[in-house]
Amino acid sequence: MTLPTPLTGVVPPVCTPLTPDGEVDVPSLRRLVDHLVTAGVSGLFVLGSTSEAAYLTDRQRRLVTETVVSHAAGRLPVLAGVIDMTTPRVLDHVASVTAAGADAVVVTAPFYTRTHPAEIARHFRLVADRSPVPVIAYDIPSAVHTKLPADLVLELAAEGVLAGLKDSSGDLAGFREVVTGSRGLSGFSALTGSELTVDSALALGADGAVPGLANVDPDGYVRLHRLCRDGDWERARAEQERLCGLFGMVRAGDGRRMGGSSAALGAFKAALHLRGVIASPVTAEPQVPLSQAETECVGKHLAAAGLM
Amino acid sequence: MTLPTPLTGVVPPVCTPLTPDGEVDVPSLRRLVDHLVTAGVSGLFVLGSTSEAAYLTDRQRRLVTETVVSHAAGRLPVLAGVIDMTTPRVLDHVASVTAAGADAVVVTAPFYTRTHPAEIARHFRLVADRSPVPVIAYDIPSAVHTKLPADLVLELAAEGVLAGLKDSSGDLAGFREVVTGSRGLSGFSALTGSELTVDSALALGADGAVPGLANVDPDGYVRLHRLCRDGDWERARAEQERLCGLFGMVRAGDGRRMGGSSAALGAFKAALHLRGVIASPVTAEPQVPLSQAETECVGKHLAAAGLM
Amino acid sequence: MTLPTPLTGVVPPVCTPLTPDGEVDVPSLRRLVDHLVTAGVSGLFVLGSTSEAAYLTDRQRRLVTETVVSHAAGRLPVLAGVIDMTTPRVLDHVASVTAAGADAVVVTAPFYTRTHPAEIARHFRLVADRSPVPVIAYDIPSAVHTKLPADLVLELAAEGVLAGLKDSSGDLAGFREVVTGSRGLSGFSALTGSELTVDSALALGADGAVPGLANVDPDGYVRLHRLCRDGDWERARAEQERLCGLFGMVRAGDGRRMGGSSAALGAFKAALHLRGVIASPVTAEPQVPLSQAETECVGKHLAAAGLM
Amino acid sequence: MTLPTPLTGVVPPVCTPLTPDGEVDVPSLRRLVDHLVTAGVSGLFVLGSTSEAAYLTDRQRRLVTETVVSHAAGRLPVLAGVIDMTTPRVLDHVASVTAAGADAVVVTAPFYTRTHPAEIARHFRLVADRSPVPVIAYDIPSAVHTKLPADLVLELAAEGVLAGLKDSSGDLAGFREVVTGSRGLSGFSALTGSELTVDSALALGADGAVPGLANVDPDGYVRLHRLCRDGDWERARAEQERLCGLFGMVRAGDGRRMGGSSAALGAFKAALHLRGVIASPVTAEPQVPLSQAETECVGKHLAAAGLM
Repeated sequence: MTLPTPLTGVVPPVCTPLTPDGEVDVPSLRRLVDHLVTAGVSGLFVLGSTSEAAYLTDRQRRLVTETVVSHAAGRLPVLAGVIDMTTPRVLDHVASVTAAGADAVVVTAPFYTRTHPAEIARHFRLVADRSPVPVIAYDIPSAVHTKLPADLVLELAAEGVLAGLKDSSGDLAGFREVVTGSRGLSGFSALTGSELTVDSALALGADGAVPGLANVDPDGYVRLHRLCRDGDWERARAEQERLCGLFGMVRAGDGRRMGGSSAALGAFKAALHLRGVIASPVTAEPQVPLSQAETECVGKHLAAAGLM
Repeated sequence: MTLPTPLTGVVPPVCTPLTPDGEVDVPSLRRLVDHLVTAGVSGLFVLGSTSEAAYLTDRQRRLVTETVVSHAAGRLPVLAGVIDMTTPRVLDHVASVTAAGADAVVVTAPFYTRTHPAEIARHFRLVADRSPVPVIAYDIPSAVHTKLPADLVLELAAEGVLAGLKDSSGDLAGFREVVTGSRGLSGFSALTGSELTVDSALALGADGAVPGLANVDPDGYVRLHRLCRDGDWERARAEQERLCGLFGMVRAGDGRRMGGSSAALGAFKAALHLRGVIASPVTAEPQVPLSQAETECVGKHLAAAGLM
Repeated sequence: MTLPTPLTGVVPPVCTPLTPDGEVDVPSLRRLVDHLVTAGVSGLFVLGSTSEAAYLTDRQRRLVTETVVSHAAGRLPVLAGVIDMTTPRVLDHVASVTAAGADAVVVTAPFYTRTHPAEIARHFRLVADRSPVPVIAYDIPSAVHTKLPADLVLELAAEGVLAGLKDSSGDLAGFREVVTGSRGLSGFSALTGSELTVDSALALGADGAVPGLANVDPDGYVRLHRLCRDGDWERARAEQERLCGLFGMVRAGDGRRMGGSSAALGAFKAALHLRGVIASPVTAEPQVPLSQAETECVGKHLAAAGLM
Repeated sequence: MTLPTPLTGVVPPVCTPLTPDGEVDVPSLRRLVDHLVTAGVSGLFVLGSTSEAAYLTDRQRRLVTETVVSHAAGRLPVLAGVIDMTTPRVLDHVASVTAAGADAVVVTAPFYTRTHPAEIARHFRLVADRSPVPVIAYDIPSAVHTKLPADLVLELAAEGVLAGLKDSSGDLAGFREVVTGSRGLSGFSALTGSELTVDSALALGADGAVPGLANVDPDGYVRLHRLCRDGDWERARAEQERLCGLFGMVRAGDGRRMGGSSAALGAFKAALHLRGVIASPVTAEPQVPLSQAETECVGKHLAAAGLM
């Protein structure tokens, strides 16, 4: 289907349920899609960081995209991450996810290499040139160790290279520059990747949100989006604060024995498992799994937020 | 062939010659292998950072490995990088390069994700467990944004998980800790990835070197290794200083319009082209190519080092 | 005077006007205080980063504090930065600024040394223990290369060690955690140091703002604060966006020949000079001064924002 | 006295013994000076990072310099750190330490501010212009978060602005560039700040070393320097490795409850106390002290190195 211009609302980065032996758990993935669609999300983003794209083989990535595209069945657009180090490898993923039916691709700056804004621009231009679907920039400096400069995003947006931005940088001031600067560009979608400042982002003009935590509580984020859209900022703040409390689950995992990705993705999957959406909370290797006590702590966060 | 234990001498990270349309230039790659083997190198490392592995598609990576393994024809061992973000993706590359005949795999810490030493250890253990050939750790914090702790490398070496270390961290003190600490471990290979302190690394006990610049001047590095092995430190220092001067070519590219990878890989390939080894100096996208003036500057470095 | 609890409104980090030979320009400093007080700010913060505290000698720091305290004359509270590397040096500054009449001290985490949260906590506790006036934590990771963890700030706030936080981290989600978590603590002041997201910070519950740009346009920030306090979010956003445009002046200075501090502080002082508030736009050594063309660019930003 | 040109040999960064209430322990400082001079060191560096300069008040800094200058009594040159954020503050320290008799000043790049190579150059030029004694650059990116570029150091050396470099960057390749590039400059002193690669640095042409661990074992470093000077590289390596083992004491302190500075400075002072040189192992606030068990671990390192 054609990507709405702009894309608005909540677009969860869909978790990838795995079986205990590390395979994509297709029935659970379908249940997760239903869980999200039922809540009223506006799109689905597969193969993002929250989807463990960095941990999925190419075969698994294809299977995920095919499964979600087929199960979404045109009810809402499916965006697909094409996370890889440089242009030639990213283009292979573009071919793969678009063959599987993705409606847009989500592209980071190059990583692993020592890059430069001129190379980042070249990268996005080349990808957009060869992609049959719109390109959304993915600003995630914690992963790629480069921040997309706002003026570069705006330049590429004006050229028609970029159809949107998913901002996971945590830099609201920089994101605001893109939001304000792209106001005249019809159809550009400015999406925040934050879980914790969705109300702030929408208040300053963002089109939508791509919060990982929306896997766990899609109703909450859909409600938050509606409150913001309707200008009910007081209740929006209260809903956002409830979701901030829920997000505390990412600290259940002990930072002395696991990394931040293990803790956050582990908590989201534990919560989805506790809520009965997916069959197993397993995360991909080499992530460290949550202990039983840590999983119980996730459960307490669910209970405190009224989800269990 | 079986990897020598330890692997000593010069093991160049082999550049990947490309055609102007970005394909692997197989005849040039074979000429480059001959250029290196003739100089007396002890092994070949394909699909490392200097090989532009981050820019090669999986198909191209296979072609490179097959070409070099087949052209080396058992005369010297071929190590292959399996550079990717996490364990499942790395294991796919391990399967591919070992099917193509690689004699060892070279593995970095996970990247893109927010990782942890416990996860890094898990990663190496899982890869070693499933790899049919020895695993060499690749410490390259400039690319993966994590430094491999010396005590972790030594722990994994003692367990038999790691057969060696390629240290491209620039931290000679940390490398020394591995060299000294692994002295009792028969067969562990401690290799420096530096171009500029090979004499220092060999003096403190390293087994060998994996310098990108050895593509351009393999004779120089082979000579340097022999001088060090023979304890002729004064002449070794002079040879090393000549090579340091030659390495200045990586600054030919203007840092205001390209990144460090473009400048370094662009210079090595320009030099190989100027020396008549490869047919084209093209680098992969989205790297910025050297200008003609910058290429001439590379030529001056070759001339100053007596190579043209 | 006693610090209001909480301190609300706009508290500009007061620039330090200098003479061409680098001395504190006391008459200009008094005019700047008048310029700010007249606009309706709620407090004055001297010796912050925007005040070039890092560039002022101890004698100059004393002179600045005495001048501003005496000129403010109890009309509004004066907060003073005590920016230095560690506890003993900070305590000397505390003694100096409180002798000069400061109503609160603003304290960063230790810097230069390789520190730790336990040491940061110890630092704040020791300073608070010996300070005759309240202690406000100054979170400025771009300068001290440590982020104050929200839970540590809240712990110290609950203990009564900290009377407030000036957050210049750019991390709105972390700031929100402090704002929400300190809601029950009577009198704790959560102040944002951002110029660009003051509306967002106030919307989520911040007490006030400490924007460097308020030197240039105090009326704008006072207006913005009132709009937010009154819940007129639409006009607040418009005012904030006007101020974001004005803030673009910090890019007038060419980043290829000067650092970010030179460009930002140079622009603020050029603007104050162009507006007739201070006698000279000079910044302290070793900052690179703006060129004439760059100063004209600052003037254009003033004009565009309706200030000239 | 006049600084030797170049300054060669071992120049320890002298620890600052403190009394339990945080005052400079002058008798212990004198004993430490004797301990170092007796071992044959070539100079004394006061107020460096190892001296806890970042933790000493201006009064304490003066007392340290006066004490050491007076006790050294012209037997060997005294270099003094003037560690502060920017030019005006550094110049105050220059005036203070030269009034106290320092024979050279050791100057870092600006810190706390967001600086630029042009500003760093300006800083060194201004300091050298006003300093009555030679200026030695102090490259310590772990503290100031800027690396001094080798070409800038060489440019300033050629101009006569810099009389030397103390390199604590850990980047041996960059240091080599300075060593090689300054060979034609009569009198420039290239000094390594490393404890662990002194042999490597001297082998590639460094003039001397400024190792913090030389407080604990000055005889070892003097011996190491002589072995290197005499070209006895094999015994030099053995001595260096013994000292590397001894340096392991910096890991006695538990990184989960203290920072790297606390652990390293705490270990050096514990060792000096255990060896009977200083009266108390106290470190300055807000450093976390070593526990008794950690102090015993330091003792074991001393015993293993043959020092107890």
